[in-house]
Amino acid sequence: MDYSFADRISSLQPSVIREILKFSSVPGMISFAAGNPAPEAFPTEQLAKISAEIYKERPIDALQYSVTEGYTPLRNALKSRYSYLLGGGDELIITSGAQQVMHLATKSLCNEGDVIICEKPSFIGSLNAFRSFNAKLVGVELERDGMNIEMLEAALKENPNAKFIYVIPNFQNPAGICTSLEKRKAIYQLAKQYGVMILEDNPYGDTRFEGEEIPSIKSFDEDGIVIYAGSFSKVISPGLRVGYAIAPAPVIAKMTVCKQISDVHTSIYSQLLVHEFLTGGQFEQHLLSIKEIYRKKCGLMCSLFEEKLSPYVTFEKPQGGLFIWCTLPDGIDMMSFCKAAVERNVAVVPGSAFLTDESQPCNSFRTNFSTPTDEQIVNGVDILSKLLSEIAK
Amino acid sequence: MDYSFADRISSLQPSVIREILKFSSVPGMISFAAGNPAPEAFPTEQLAKISAEIYKERPIDALQYSVTEGYTPLRNALKSRYSYLLGGGDELIITSGAQQVMHLATKSLCNEGDVIICEKPSFIGSLNAFRSFNAKLVGVELERDGMNIEMLEAALKENPNAKFIYVIPNFQNPAGICTSLEKRKAIYQLAKQYGVMILEDNPYGDTRFEGEEIPSIKSFDEDGIVIYAGSFSKVISPGLRVGYAIAPAPVIAKMTVCKQISDVHTSIYSQLLVHEFLTGGQFEQHLLSIKEIYRKKCGLMCSLFEEKLSPYVTFEKPQGGLFIWCTLPDGIDMMSFCKAAVERNVAVVPGSAFLTDESQPCNSFRTNFSTPTDEQIVNGVDILSKLLSEIAK
Repeated sequence: MDYSFADRISSLQPSVIREILKFSSVPGMISFAAGNPAPEAFPTEQLAKISAEIYKERPIDALQYSVTEGYTPLRNALKSRYSYLLGGGDELIITSGAQQVMHLATKSLCNEGDVIICEKPSFIGSLNAFRSFNAKLVGVELERDGMNIEMLEAALKENPNAKFIYVIPNFQNPAGICTSLEKRKAIYQLAKQYGVMILEDNPYGDTRFEGEEIPSIKSFDEDGIVIYAGSFSKVISPGLRVGYAIAPAPVIAKMTVCKQISDVHTSIYSQLLVHEFLTGGQFEQHLLSIKEIYRKKCGLMCSLFEEKLSPYVTFEKPQGGLFIWCTLPDGIDMMSFCKAAVERNVAVVPGSAFLTDESQPCNSFRTNFSTPTDEQIVNGVDILSKLLSEIAK
Repeated sequence: MDYSFADRISSLQPSVIREILKFSSVPGMISFAAGNPAPEAFPTEQLAKISAEIYKERPIDALQYSVTEGYTPLRNALKSRYSYLLGGGDELIITSGAQQVMHLATKSLCNEGDVIICEKPSFIGSLNAFRSFNAKLVGVELERDGMNIEMLEAALKENPNAKFIYVIPNFQNPAGICTSLEKRKAIYQLAKQYGVMILEDNPYGDTRFEGEEIPSIKSFDEDGIVIYAGSFSKVISPGLRVGYAIAPAPVIAKMTVCKQISDVHTSIYSQLLVHEFLTGGQFEQHLLSIKEIYRKKCGLMCSLFEEKLSPYVTFEKPQGGLFIWCTLPDGIDMMSFCKAAVERNVAVVPGSAFLTDESQPCNSFRTNFSTPTDEQIVNGVDILSKLLSEIAK
C-alpha cells in the first residue's frame, strides 16, 4: 500500500542533523550531544524507599485510572510551592513531561498557519511540536540577554495571526543564556500590547548553580496571558515523565480536554512518587546536591574549552542548565566540523538543528556537560582540540 | 484577555452527557458508569516485588530518559508473544496507553476534513481523539455480529477521502459484542478494495471469560493496511499507562515522530515493570484469575438485570470486556431515565455519548460491571428496578 500521511507532519523529515545524531549512541562514542541528567544526580535511594511505601500502603491508588488534570495532592503542592506564579485566574495541570505542555498548548490555541514567534535558536523538540500542527515559525534573534526586542516587535507587527511567543528564559536550550529581567518585562509588555500569549518554558530554572535568580515572566502576569511549563525531568527523573503547566483556567480547561484524548492521564504511580519526594522534606537538599554536581561538571568542561579550544571556539559560560553554546570562527564550517567530530567518536549537535529554518547559516554547535563522565569530558575535549588544530592548519 | 482557541477543538464541548458523568464521583454514588478494572484484579504483590528489584538492580534504567519507540526488551517480548499479528513489514511502538495510539494514528494519517468510519456506537475517547484533528466521523450501524457490511460499503463509496475504519472487534465498548470472523474478513476485504486502512482497537481481547477466541483482523493483514492497538490497562494496570501499536513500518515511523513531540517516551519505569511481569512467568496465571473475577461480576449483573429489569431492559450478555449495553423500550426516554437514575445515586452512561452525532436518537445506556462491588451491583440494580417500574406506570 502507498501510505498517504497528513500534511502537518510532512515537514518533520529526517535531516542531515538527525543523521549525525544517530551516531551519538554508537558504542565508544563520547556523547556531548544528549541532554540526560547525570546518573549520580538521581535520588535513587529515596525514590526506592518512597516506592516501597506506596506499594505497601496504597498500591491501588498507584495502579488504577486517575483524573486527567493530575493527582490532586501533587497539584496542590505545586500551587503552594509556586504560589508566586499563580494569578487569581490561573489553574495547574500535570502533564507527561514538559514536552506535552508544548503539544497541548499548540493543539488548544493554534489553527494551521497561525504564527508562533520563537527564539533563534530554540529547543528542537518544541519547534517540532509547533511544526506538527502546521504552525508557521518566526524566529527572533537571541542575544546574550534574551530576544532582540526590536526584532520581536517587528515580528509581532508583521504577523497579526501570531498566537504566542515561545521563550525559555532560564539557561536557554541550546544557547545557555538567561533573559534579563528588563527583557522579560519588555516581552511581556509587547505580548500584552499585541494581544498574543507567551509560552514560558522553564525546565532548567531549579538548576541554577551560579548568579542570582531572575523572576519568571509568569510571576508578573496580571493579564492572564502566560502559559508556564515546568518539569521534574532535570531535578528528579525524566524517565517518570512528570511536568506541569500553569495558565489561565480557560486555557487549562482546553489543554485538559486535549490531554484526555492524548493519553488520558500521566502515570499516576509517577505522580505519587514525585508528590512524596517533593513534600517529604528531602527535595531542597537534593536540589543543592544536583546544583553542586552540575556546577562542577560545567566548570570542568568550560575550563577545558578555554584551555584547549581557544581561540577557535567562543562560548558563554552558563550559570545553570545542561548546555554550552559554542561558536566557530567564519573560516571553519560548522557542519563539516560536526561530521568530522562524530567520525572521531565525539558527538555534538549542529546549531542549525535549533533554527526555525534549518537551512539558514549557523556557525555554532551545542555541547552538554551533564551526561558525559569527567573522564569523557577530558578525552572528548582533547579530540575536539586536535580536530580543530588540524582543520585550522 | 479573550482567549481564541483552535477550531479543531471547538467540537469538544461539555455536553449534557458529561454533566451527568460528573455526578458519578459524588460520594455515595453507585457508579455503573466507569470503566476501571476491579481493585482485586491488580497483581499488586507481584508488581511490588518487581518494582523493588528494579530499584535495587537498575534504578537509573528506570529513571533516565529513554527512546521514543519504547523499551527494546518489552518491544521484543510483545513481538514474540503476538508474532501472529506481525507481518513481514510491521513494526511495534510502545505508547502511553492505547488512547495514544488513536491520537498518533490520526495525527499521522488524517488531514482536517478527512473521513474516519466508525462503529455506531463506539468508544467516546477515540471519537473525541478523531474529532480533535477535525476529522469527519461517519457512523456505520453496529449489529450483534459487527458492523452492517452493506452500510460500510455505502459509506466507503460515499467518502472517497476516508482514511481508516475504526473497529473494536472484541467486547466492543460500549456495545459489548464481538465482530464475527466473517465480518472481520468482509471489513478487511472492503478496506483493501477501497484503499483505506483499518484501526483495530483491542483493549479487551485478553479478558475473554466465555466462548471461543476469534482471530484479530491484524492476523490476516497481508497487505499492510491494519494498525493494531493493544493495551495493558485492563490486564495489568491502567495507572501505569502502557499500550502499544503494531502497524506497517512506515506508519510506525510517522507515529514515532508524533510521539516524540507529544511526550518524548512512555514512562520507562512503567515499561520495565510491565516487561518483567509479562515475561516473569506469572502473566498467564494472572490472566486466568482476572477472567474469573470478571466472569463472576458480569454473571451477577446480568442475572440481576434479567430478574429485576426485565421486561423493560433488553441486553446481550457479553463474553468478555467490562460493559453491558442495555436498551429501553420506545415508551421510556433514555436521557430522562439516566438523569433520574443519577438523582437516586446510580450512574450509568447515556448511549448517545457513544454516537458520532450525539443528537441522533438513542434509547440505550451503558453499564459497567468491573468497578462496583458485588454489594453495589445488587443495590444499584434494585434502585434501577424501582425507578423503571415507577416510570413505566
